[in-house]
Amino acid sequence: MNYRMIKYTLGWILLFEALFLLLPTVCALVLSEHVLAAFLWSVAACLAAGLLLVLKKPTSTTLYSREGFLIVSLSWILLSLFGAMPLYISGVTPSYVDALFEIVSGFTTTGASIFPSVEVLPRSILFWRSFTHWVGGMGVLVFILAFLPLSGGQNMHIMKAESPGPSVSKLVPRVRTTALILYALYFVLTLIEFIMLLCGGMTAFEAMLTSFSTAGTGGFGFLNSSIGSFSPYIQIVVTVFMVLFSLNFSSYYLALREKWKDAFNEEIRAFVLIVLFSGVIIALNVRSLFSNLGDAFRHSFFTVSSIISTTGFATADFDLWPSLSKGILVTLMFIGACAGSTGGGIKVSRIIILCKGALRELKLALHPKQIKKISVDARPVEHEVVRSVNSYMICYLLIFVLSFLLISIDGHDLVTCFTSVAATLNNVGPGLSMVGPTQNFSFFSAPSKLILIFDMLAGRLELFPMLLLFSPGTFKKT
Amino acid sequence: MNYRMIKYTLGWILLFEALFLLLPTVCALVLSEHVLAAFLWSVAACLAAGLLLVLKKPTSTTLYSREGFLIVSLSWILLSLFGAMPLYISGVTPSYVDALFEIVSGFTTTGASIFPSVEVLPRSILFWRSFTHWVGGMGVLVFILAFLPLSGGQNMHIMKAESPGPSVSKLVPRVRTTALILYALYFVLTLIEFIMLLCGGMTAFEAMLTSFSTAGTGGFGFLNSSIGSFSPYIQIVVTVFMVLFSLNFSSYYLALREKWKDAFNEEIRAFVLIVLFSGVIIALNVRSLFSNLGDAFRHSFFTVSSIISTTGFATADFDLWPSLSKGILVTLMFIGACAGSTGGGIKVSRIIILCKGALRELKLALHPKQIKKISVDARPVEHEVVRSVNSYMICYLLIFVLSFLLISIDGHDLVTCFTSVAATLNNVGPGLSMVGPTQNFSFFSAPSKLILIFDMLAGRLELFPMLLLFSPGTFKKT
Repeated sequence: MNYRMIKYTLGWILLFEALFLLLPTVCALVLSEHVLAAFLWSVAACLAAGLLLVLKKPTSTTLYSREGFLIVSLSWILLSLFGAMPLYISGVTPSYVDALFEIVSGFTTTGASIFPSVEVLPRSILFWRSFTHWVGGMGVLVFILAFLPLSGGQNMHIMKAESPGPSVSKLVPRVRTTALILYALYFVLTLIEFIMLLCGGMTAFEAMLTSFSTAGTGGFGFLNSSIGSFSPYIQIVVTVFMVLFSLNFSSYYLALREKWKDAFNEEIRAFVLIVLFSGVIIALNVRSLFSNLGDAFRHSFFTVSSIISTTGFATADFDLWPSLSKGILVTLMFIGACAGSTGGGIKVSRIIILCKGALRELKLALHPKQIKKISVDARPVEHEVVRSVNSYMICYLLIFVLSFLLISIDGHDLVTCFTSVAATLNNVGPGLSMVGPTQNFSFFSAPSKLILIFDMLAGRLELFPMLLLFSPGTFKKT
Repeated sequence: MNYRMIKYTLGWILLFEALFLLLPTVCALVLSEHVLAAFLWSVAACLAAGLLLVLKKPTSTTLYSREGFLIVSLSWILLSLFGAMPLYISGVTPSYVDALFEIVSGFTTTGASIFPSVEVLPRSILFWRSFTHWVGGMGVLVFILAFLPLSGGQNMHIMKAESPGPSVSKLVPRVRTTALILYALYFVLTLIEFIMLLCGGMTAFEAMLTSFSTAGTGGFGFLNSSIGSFSPYIQIVVTVFMVLFSLNFSSYYLALREKWKDAFNEEIRAFVLIVLFSGVIIALNVRSLFSNLGDAFRHSFFTVSSIISTTGFATADFDLWPSLSKGILVTLMFIGACAGSTGGGIKVSRIIILCKGALRELKLALHPKQIKKISVDARPVEHEVVRSVNSYMICYLLIFVLSFLLISIDGHDLVTCFTSVAATLNNVGPGLSMVGPTQNFSFFSAPSKLILIFDMLAGRLELFPMLLLFSPGTFKKT
């Protein structure tokens, strides 16, 4: 285990976090908000700890799979521990666990909040919450990979461990260039949304925060009514961008290079179909709750896009919708976005592989001698990918059940327990019942909050990096 | 496709059902109950249809995998369609769908009822309900295999399709002898329970019905309070036998041959541990609801055994228990009994294989070059078994989600929708909320009942035979 290299990378993570924290610090300074001191202390802490860790350059930069996983999980934990400091020091959260919950929810782009009212929060804090979404969406390590010449060429392990989905495709041979292209696309898309929101009458601050939250598919807002009080135009823009940020980013790259067929791949087609189908069913199901069919369709498609992209914005309290609609929404929470997007959940490509695998098994039961590989986009899926997707599902179910049982010790109703785990493990944000879109997560006990924090991190990092932290094998010498 | 052989076998199924129906007919005759006519008509219908089908002996008795699956699914459907006749003709159920629901619930050993009160039912009907549990528990086709020289030696396909669990082990080289041994063990165990219940003061009729329901891990009772009004002795006897009937029957055979180590295998050890662990946690969790710790332990272990064995008897209304207890019980519904028992659920052996597979994948992430097969009972598990268990899980999840969504169209609360599917697909019987242990399934719409009927059959027949009915490939000529 190359501990020196791990320490060194973690040091850089903290230095970058100091840089990120400068933005809300400036914001607090300009608005002369009382939280300025809290931000300054946090920046200082990140700088000090970061410099201490990067002081000694490692002799070997070799990274294996193990180190890749460890760097990713430790980076995210460290990032959250330090990122929570401004909230705790300024006293806007009652406890450090609450501050940690909020910031983990930010970085993992979950959007679950412990604040009963966000409108009373200082604007620099609101900025920091939404900015963590933007940073966490595309990945902190991918960011650092893009801007820091870390090691020879083994960064793929890091990128693999941080990127959502069953497999990572390098767009170009060099990992660093791939990371740069991804961030460039991410930045441009965010900018376009920002401009379109400005055109809809949002202030620059509002448009920026909404763009950050949409881009990271996070969901933190700055109004208690989320996006509900904005005009239909704004709601439709947000709907469209929630969908856009749920698509595989490499598809945009392929589209730019005019490889249309590769860009509009099976996963994206399935995703679009699911959105359309669910949107129509729910619109018809909630028809009577709205004054006209147009409103029903707008709210339905906003909610469907918000949930399947795992953003978590709301324009209506879907906890009051009929069972069928709620059932579909809970199902969408699990399905999640496309691989290689900023969204969470199990991912559409995994669902496709799982379904095709099951279908092949059924065919096999009929004709035991015909063994054929399954294929996605007319390419056979490697056996290892299928196996790892299956294992992912089992780990996912185990974490889900265990979290659900531990959360239920608090004694809240089963729908609250179930959907609070679903909303955090899938990085959605709101659930149903006591964690519905108009509610918040503050009522949970501290141990339950820690479990949900683990779930958010496990969900964002696709389980394995977090699970391996508990395996003694990870730290064993080889 | 050997349609003649399928028809021929189905004919025998109906003839055997006529034989089964003779028992409640005699019961109705002796007690001169008004339902006698309904039973006589049903026997006549089974006889007529059966004789018509067996008239022409097939020239070829060859059965392939496809035919095996088809025979199993069609047998169970036919058995249920005819078995529901007495309930419908006698008018004890308001509709034929209700009668079908009740009898499918019987044969599949689910125990979910549409009767608000069972105490008003004729005793011959009560007998028939519980007897279907006993017949369905070990399997109708296994029964027929034991007593009917059907074909050369390809019966393994049928037995495989009807037996619960990821793999079927023939105890002895001949399928027919294996089936006979299984039924002998089943009969003896049922008899022992019957005698022990008699000793506890139950009448012969009560003891017989309770034994039938326990043996098949069904759960139909003859009192509205299920087993709640009986003495602690009776409750403890039933608890013990629910556990005994959840164990792999081949273990009894191995134990009789004094192969202790093979008998007390990994699955049984895991099962016992789960029961003990859940029982203790729930007992402590519900402590305050009972007058003393002994009562809490008795009710806790009764309920845990009832749910994990998927029997569904009740001594207490666990819908009123705290969230943690309810959460554990719902989890146990999914885990289910051991493979090769009369119980339902996913089966402990599958859970073991799934967990070990996921664990291996985690290890693989750390050390990509070490590929090792997983092993159960110190024997490596074949790759095909792991793959089929994975596919089983995916099919299971798909059926679950789809059923859940379709049921939710009725508009009942999410806990009712979720647990009604969990209770039927796992063949448990009672769920929570509106389908809790003191409630019943009568309020569902007819389409929802049909979906739950499908779920019960799919759960009992381990999904594939029922799923293949919907595949055009099943009926295609090769």
